[in-house]
Amino acid sequence: MTARDTLASWLRDAHAMEGQAITLLETQIDRLKNYPEALPRLRQHLEETKEQRAKVEQCLNQLGEDTSTLKDATMKLGANLQGMLHAMSSDEVLKHALSSNAFEHFEAASYCSLTAAAEDANEPEIARTCDGIMRQELAMADWVWQQLPPLTHKYLHREEAGVEARR
Amino acid sequence: MTARDTLASWLRDAHAMEGQAITLLETQIDRLKNYPEALPRLRQHLEETKEQRAKVEQCLNQLGEDTSTLKDATMKLGANLQGMLHAMSSDEVLKHALSSNAFEHFEAASYCSLTAAAEDANEPEIARTCDGIMRQELAMADWVWQQLPPLTHKYLHREEAGVEARR
Repeated sequence: MTARDTLASWLRDAHAMEGQAITLLETQIDRLKNYPEALPRLRQHLEETKEQRAKVEQCLNQLGEDTSTLKDATMKLGANLQGMLHAMSSDEVLKHALSSNAFEHFEAASYCSLTAAAEDANEPEIARTCDGIMRQELAMADWVWQQLPPLTHKYLHREEAGVEARR
Repeated sequence: MTARDTLASWLRDAHAMEGQAITLLETQIDRLKNYPEALPRLRQHLEETKEQRAKVEQCLNQLGEDTSTLKDATMKLGANLQGMLHAMSSDEVLKHALSSNAFEHFEAASYCSLTAAAEDANEPEIARTCDGIMRQELAMADWVWQQLPPLTHKYLHREEAGVEARR
């Protein structure tokens, strides 16, 4: 396997990851009832995620890869990514926030590794694209992190008041 | 549910999480063959993790909780944590690093939320303990993050050279 082959294979994984991230963000936006303050940033990240998936497809095109089979790839997620996505699908707002922060870091780490792989494959444009997506994922992870203390306080206060806290 | 009840319940979850983290770190340390440079920090974090589990047990004792049943709690991990731990159990060094970085952030986020819960429950000493553990998890996450570019380069070079790269 050359660095280029591995880069192409990992970009396919990243495309599948973004597809699943879109589904889970849409579900989460639908579910949230008592935490509307989170919606604007979640909707913004949903748009970013759609753009990221398109950028990954462009990278694959640049490598001369056939992208007509990408839809199939979304069905073939690796076991560790499936576990992560399962973790992200919690229907409880605080557990979702913990998993979501972790998932954004997983995505950021994937693009950090992809950037290094693109360098090894002598694809500086792809390296720049992956580095840019990595920064967006880190910014989203940081936003979720900042929400944790106020979200925890609000959750506990709602629970003590006997009103719905989970969503 | 009072903040104190929720805090106790979450501390039990954290105890179970650390138990699983110990098992997975031990497995990872056993498996690594071609990346010995990672071992000292992994072993250091294994010791930290054992101390963290003991500190969480002390927090439960401070709350007057019965800790004789804690072993059972390790069997009752929530679905989202199970997904995360499944993610962390990859036998491929790079996938493990991506998942491991995400898992450390999951742990850090759990302790960030626990710190906020301990404040609400008027347990400043427990809040300080959880804040301290949170910082250790963030430091470990940051270390894994720093490894990603050199680890990716080494992995790809080994793969191109036709020698074992996965472990």
